[in-house]
Amino acid sequence: MARPADIGDLLYEGKAKRIHATSREGVVAIEFKDAATAFNARRRAELQGKGRLNCLIAAHLFEALEQAGIPTHYLGLLNDNWMAARAVEIIPIEVVIRNRAAGSICKQLPIAPATLIEPPLLDLYYKDDALDDPLLSDARLTMLGIVSEVQRHAIECLARRVNDRLRQTFARARLDLVDFKIELGLTPQGQLVVADEISPDSCRLWKLDPDSDANDRILDKDRFRRNLGNVIKAYGEVLKRVQELGLHPTPYR
Amino acid sequence: MARPADIGDLLYEGKAKRIHATSREGVVAIEFKDAATAFNARRRAELQGKGRLNCLIAAHLFEALEQAGIPTHYLGLLNDNWMAARAVEIIPIEVVIRNRAAGSICKQLPIAPATLIEPPLLDLYYKDDALDDPLLSDARLTMLGIVSEVQRHAIECLARRVNDRLRQTFARARLDLVDFKIELGLTPQGQLVVADEISPDSCRLWKLDPDSDANDRILDKDRFRRNLGNVIKAYGEVLKRVQELGLHPTPYR
Repeated sequence: MARPADIGDLLYEGKAKRIHATSREGVVAIEFKDAATAFNARRRAELQGKGRLNCLIAAHLFEALEQAGIPTHYLGLLNDNWMAARAVEIIPIEVVIRNRAAGSICKQLPIAPATLIEPPLLDLYYKDDALDDPLLSDARLTMLGIVSEVQRHAIECLARRVNDRLRQTFARARLDLVDFKIELGLTPQGQLVVADEISPDSCRLWKLDPDSDANDRILDKDRFRRNLGNVIKAYGEVLKRVQELGLHPTPYR
Repeated sequence: MARPADIGDLLYEGKAKRIHATSREGVVAIEFKDAATAFNARRRAELQGKGRLNCLIAAHLFEALEQAGIPTHYLGLLNDNWMAARAVEIIPIEVVIRNRAAGSICKQLPIAPATLIEPPLLDLYYKDDALDDPLLSDARLTMLGIVSEVQRHAIECLARRVNDRLRQTFARARLDLVDFKIELGLTPQGQLVVADEISPDSCRLWKLDPDSDANDRILDKDRFRRNLGNVIKAYGEVLKRVQELGLHPTPYR
């Protein structure tokens, strides 16, 4: 996709996105790349079309959150691969909410894959690739002093609201939200907002269609992690389903 | 060391100890083995004399705790390698208290080795060799339902009392208690007590003598983990120092 007009310096390049300045104060442009990475980037690939799919899926999901009054950094689409967002300071914590057991937790705890977790489990990880994003207990978080107790409660409350809204939204699209990771940011005014992206790279999504078998139902990055194939087809299916919900991402002007 | 009289069936064999029944209701006999293991038993060795040293060191430290009114499973020495203890149900949680950063935490969090941690960090791990004893956040502990909230607070309170007393005791022996692991058990009457052992296998202990260099000061299992040599000599030094404190382990009759 062509670069939109009015894009400034590259501010930050991550594994799957580039953040650029714009001419507007406090507004950045996020470019979604076609790069796929897993296992802390020990596996990498280029998957043509992934950037566009994740950008459009994230736009629909940010719309769903904003419509529920949940603050996000999202401002609108610049084109199919580029999103306008508020400039925020990212909090170096990854928040994971698990509605069902899947992935790492089944290797770490005595819990069988697909077990429903009620209430959903909220895990905080320290965002640091060099340390492999370690799990934080409350005591370790307090020791590191990354966030205050009040901020931690605000983060956990916001993440649970996001989970409630995303579960509803995906259920309408006949998708089961197994778990997801979000990152949060602080605006210059000190508002806590959902940042980064929400996409099949950051969510586990299983088809709720009754005829799906265990591997067929997987529509998320586990297709890439576990070499199940048809990654782009699966992401396309997620986009098709969320497009049918009438959320209509707004173009940014 | 010869097997004491009145020893019954083997009830349980761990990596470093054997638990036997005795003819007395509610009393077990703990035999300390010469086996040394590290990295979840991926490294193993026989170190002659280690069983005796750990048994005698543990007896002195349990005496120190009991004298401070901290309940333990310890009842007295049967001989230099065997200890009498109350039969308890072990809670499948390892409690680690860290007064200084050392070992795994320096690989997991941005904290430099030897950093003083104030207040001391309390970490809970799920005791399961097959899962490599994973760290438990409060939320994960609640999800697993291993202990109630009230029990968790009792466990944490008891562990902090143990830390306070052990730090004092070791300081009198010119040793710095860097960190330690304890296991707790429940008596048939429901009392929470310190169980397992307290020894250079379960504590990091650094000499406080001013002339010690960084490796020389280490008197604990890190000598075995890190192939520093002189393991038995170091454990012997710990025993010599705690013997000078006048704690006098009681023979069990």
